[in-house]
Amino acid sequence: MNARTKTYVNTRTPEEMKKKVVIVGGGFTGLNAARILSNKKDVEVILIDKKNYHLFQPLIYQVAMAALGEGDIATPLRNMLADNHNVTVFKGMVTNVDLEQRKVITDFGDVEYDYLVLACGAQHHYFGNNGWEEHAPGLKTLAQASEIRRRVMEAYEAAERTKDPKERKKQLTFVIVGGGPTGVELAGSIGEMSRYTLSKFYRNIDPKLTRIFIVEAAERILGTFAPELSSKATRELEKLGVQVWTSSMVSDVDADGVQIGRERIEAATALWAAGIKASDLGRMMGVETDRSDRIVIENDLSLPGHPEVFAGGDQACFMLENGATLPGIAPVAMQEGNAIGKTILNDIKGRPRKPFKYRDKGQMATIGRNKAIVEIGNLKINGAFAWFTWLLVHIYYLSTFRHRVFVLMQWAWSYFTFGYGARLIVNRDWRFYREKKQGCDDDSSS
Amino acid sequence: MNARTKTYVNTRTPEEMKKKVVIVGGGFTGLNAARILSNKKDVEVILIDKKNYHLFQPLIYQVAMAALGEGDIATPLRNMLADNHNVTVFKGMVTNVDLEQRKVITDFGDVEYDYLVLACGAQHHYFGNNGWEEHAPGLKTLAQASEIRRRVMEAYEAAERTKDPKERKKQLTFVIVGGGPTGVELAGSIGEMSRYTLSKFYRNIDPKLTRIFIVEAAERILGTFAPELSSKATRELEKLGVQVWTSSMVSDVDADGVQIGRERIEAATALWAAGIKASDLGRMMGVETDRSDRIVIENDLSLPGHPEVFAGGDQACFMLENGATLPGIAPVAMQEGNAIGKTILNDIKGRPRKPFKYRDKGQMATIGRNKAIVEIGNLKINGAFAWFTWLLVHIYYLSTFRHRVFVLMQWAWSYFTFGYGARLIVNRDWRFYREKKQGCDDDSSS
Repeated sequence: MNARTKTYVNTRTPEEMKKKVVIVGGGFTGLNAARILSNKKDVEVILIDKKNYHLFQPLIYQVAMAALGEGDIATPLRNMLADNHNVTVFKGMVTNVDLEQRKVITDFGDVEYDYLVLACGAQHHYFGNNGWEEHAPGLKTLAQASEIRRRVMEAYEAAERTKDPKERKKQLTFVIVGGGPTGVELAGSIGEMSRYTLSKFYRNIDPKLTRIFIVEAAERILGTFAPELSSKATRELEKLGVQVWTSSMVSDVDADGVQIGRERIEAATALWAAGIKASDLGRMMGVETDRSDRIVIENDLSLPGHPEVFAGGDQACFMLENGATLPGIAPVAMQEGNAIGKTILNDIKGRPRKPFKYRDKGQMATIGRNKAIVEIGNLKINGAFAWFTWLLVHIYYLSTFRHRVFVLMQWAWSYFTFGYGARLIVNRDWRFYREKKQGCDDDSSS
Repeated sequence: MNARTKTYVNTRTPEEMKKKVVIVGGGFTGLNAARILSNKKDVEVILIDKKNYHLFQPLIYQVAMAALGEGDIATPLRNMLADNHNVTVFKGMVTNVDLEQRKVITDFGDVEYDYLVLACGAQHHYFGNNGWEEHAPGLKTLAQASEIRRRVMEAYEAAERTKDPKERKKQLTFVIVGGGPTGVELAGSIGEMSRYTLSKFYRNIDPKLTRIFIVEAAERILGTFAPELSSKATRELEKLGVQVWTSSMVSDVDADGVQIGRERIEAATALWAAGIKASDLGRMMGVETDRSDRIVIENDLSLPGHPEVFAGGDQACFMLENGATLPGIAPVAMQEGNAIGKTILNDIKGRPRKPFKYRDKGQMATIGRNKAIVEIGNLKINGAFAWFTWLLVHIYYLSTFRHRVFVLMQWAWSYFTFGYGARLIVNRDWRFYREKKQGCDDDSSS
C-alpha cells in the first residue's frame, strides 16, 4: 500500500489529489453535506440521486391535497447546486456499495470515492402486508402525492355520478391509517376541503357528509407530542368532522374498506401514513441495520469500521445516550448533513473528529386553517398562533427565494378565498387516447 | 306521438319541462356553450368530460418546457361552473350516441338529451404510422406535456453521464416534426433554454451545443401566415440554433433518430407536432366526416338531418363559401361554442336560426423571448411588440383571475432572471420504489 501510495503522489495532478466525496441522495442530508463541501479546494463532490430534484418533504401533503403544485416544493438539484462548481450531479441509480474497493455501483458504471455519504431516506412500510399498498398508498414521493390527489378527487366524481346511496356513502368515506403528523395533515385537509371548499361544486352530493377516519394503533395520535397537545389536536380534527380511532390496529385493507379487528369501515379510499423503513441499500450492503433497516452509525455519524463512510437522515440510526434513537424528521437530516460535511473538511485538514450533537428545535404539526400544535421544550402552543409559527418556519426553510414567494402567495390566496389550488385529475399515461377508443380528446383516469 | 306528448304535458313538473342539453367535452366550445346556457330557466345542462378540468391548450407547450406548471393552465370544470347552477358536470367517458333515441352512451349509463353538443376536440395523427408515437410523442394532453418534459430533461441527464462523444451528441439532438405554431414554440423553447438557461447547470457538457431541427413537409414553416412572417420566424429560430428543414418529409422515426428520405438525423428525442385528426366519436356514430374525422356540419353548426345535434371546435368541419374549412384554433372553438349556446336559446324561444359567421381575429405564434409574429388582416408585426401582444392576449384569455396573476408572475420572473420553472422529471408510477430494488427513496424514471 505504501509503495503504491507513493507512486501515486508522484504522478497525480492537483486535480487527482482532490478528495473525492460521493453523496448518495439529494434530500436534506445530502444537500446540506454538498453545500458545506462546495467550492472548497481539495474536494470534489459527486451527488447521485434517482430523481433530478430535491423535494421539500414537509409540505408534500399539500401537493397531495392540491393546495400546492409539484414545482412549489421541488427544485432540480442542478439549479440548487449551480454555483457550487466542485459539485457534479448525476441522475442515476445506486444499486450497491463496494466498501473494500471504495466504489459505488450504479446503473451508469462504478464511481470511486475517498469519502461516501449515504443519505437515501426512507420508504413506506406495510409490516409484511405489501398487498395493502395498492389499496392504501403512502405519501413519500411526488408520484404518490399525485396518485393520492387523483384518488380523493375521483371519489367525489364517483359519488356525484352514482344513484346508489350506499355506493355514494362509500365514495365519501376516507380512512387514513396512522395518526402521526402526516396522517393528521391529510385528515385535516380532507376535512377542511369537504366542509369549506367543495360544497358549491357538486349538484348531486353534499360534500359536508364526507366521513374521515384516522386509525391509530397507539393510545393517542401524535404520540411524540405532549399528551395535552395531542388531545387538543384531536378536538380540532373532530371540529372538521374527522373521527379519531385510537388503540385500533388495522388487520386488513381491501378495495372496499379497512378492517380493524372485528370492526369494518366501508371506504373507497384508504391512505397509508403508518409505517416507515429506510432505503434497502443498507441491508443490501450487509452492514448492521436496525429493525427499520436504518444503518447503525457511530457518534461521528460514520459506519463502524469505515470512518470514510457516513450515513445520515432517515437512512441512519443514531443512538442517543438514553438508548432512544433520533427520529426521521427534517431538522435531524439537515443537522446530520451539515455535521458530515464539516467532519470531512476537518479530516482533510487533519483535525480530530467531534461527536455529533443534535440540537432539538422542537416539533410542530398542522391540522388546518388556524389550527396547529407547536412544542419547543416546555413551551406548548396551539391554535392560530401555532399555525402562524408553523407557516413562517416552513416558508423560511423552503429551498429558494422563488419558492418562498410563490408558496406564500398561494397560501394567502387560499386563506382569503377559502379556495384550494387546482384539483386536477391527471392520468399519467401519455398515450391514453390511443389505448381507449372513445370520444374526447384528453387524458383521464377512468 | 301527439297523444303521448299531451299526456306528458299534463303530468310533467316544471323541472321535467326543462330542455335537457348534453354537452360532450369541456374545451373552449363546450365551456362557452355551457356558459351561454347557464342560469337560464327552461334549460338544464349536463357537461360530460373524460377529464375533470378545462385545459388552456394554447399554453400547453409551456408546461412541456417547464415554464409553467399544470395548475397554471388547467382548471377543474366544477370550479369554473360552480355558479352556473343549472349545469351538472360528470367526469365520464362517452362511447357513442344514439341519434334516434336521443341519448348519449357513457361508461356510467345512458344520458338522454333534447339538445346535444359534440365538442370532443382533436388528437394527434401519425398518418398510418402509429408506431412512431412511441418515439415521437405529440402534445395535446397534460400527460403528454409532462412526458415531453421528461424526455427532454432526461436527454440532458444522459448526456451529462455518458463519456461517449457520439452518444452525447445524439442525446443533445432534438428533432421536431412539423413546423406549425406548436412545432415552432417547442423548437424555440428548447433553443432558448439550451442557449440561455441550462449552461451553468452541467459540468460535463455544454448545453449550447444542443442541435434542434424542425422538419416540415411544406415549403415553409407556419404556412397559414404570410410568407414574410414565416421567413422572419425562420431567421429568429436560427438565431436560437434551430435548423429549419422545409420540403422534408419524414419517412421513419425510431428510437435513435429520424429518417427523411435518404437523409438521417441521429437524435435521442423526437417530438411530433405534425398531423391532427378529430376525436373518433364522429366516425363511431356513423355520421359524415371529412378526412380528418371531423363531423361535417351545416351553416348553423348542426348535424345534417339532426337540428338538435351540434358539433364545434376541433371536432367539427365548417365549410366556408370559398370551399375552405375553419382551422382548429381556439378562437374558432370559442365562437362556435357561443353560437351553439345562442342557437339553442333561440330555438327554445321559437326564434329562427342564423347561420354562423366566423369573425377572424388574426393569428399569432411565439418563438421565444421578445420573438413572435402576429398577423391581423393586413397588419403584420414581429419582434418584441408582437411578443408583447401575444403575451397580453394569452393572459387575457386565461380562464380565471387567479390564473392570470400566477402565470403573469411566473413569466415576469423567468423574463428577468432568464430562468425557467421547475424542470422536474417525475416518474408517474407511484409504486416505483417497490418495483425496483435500489438505494434511494424517491420516484425516478430510469
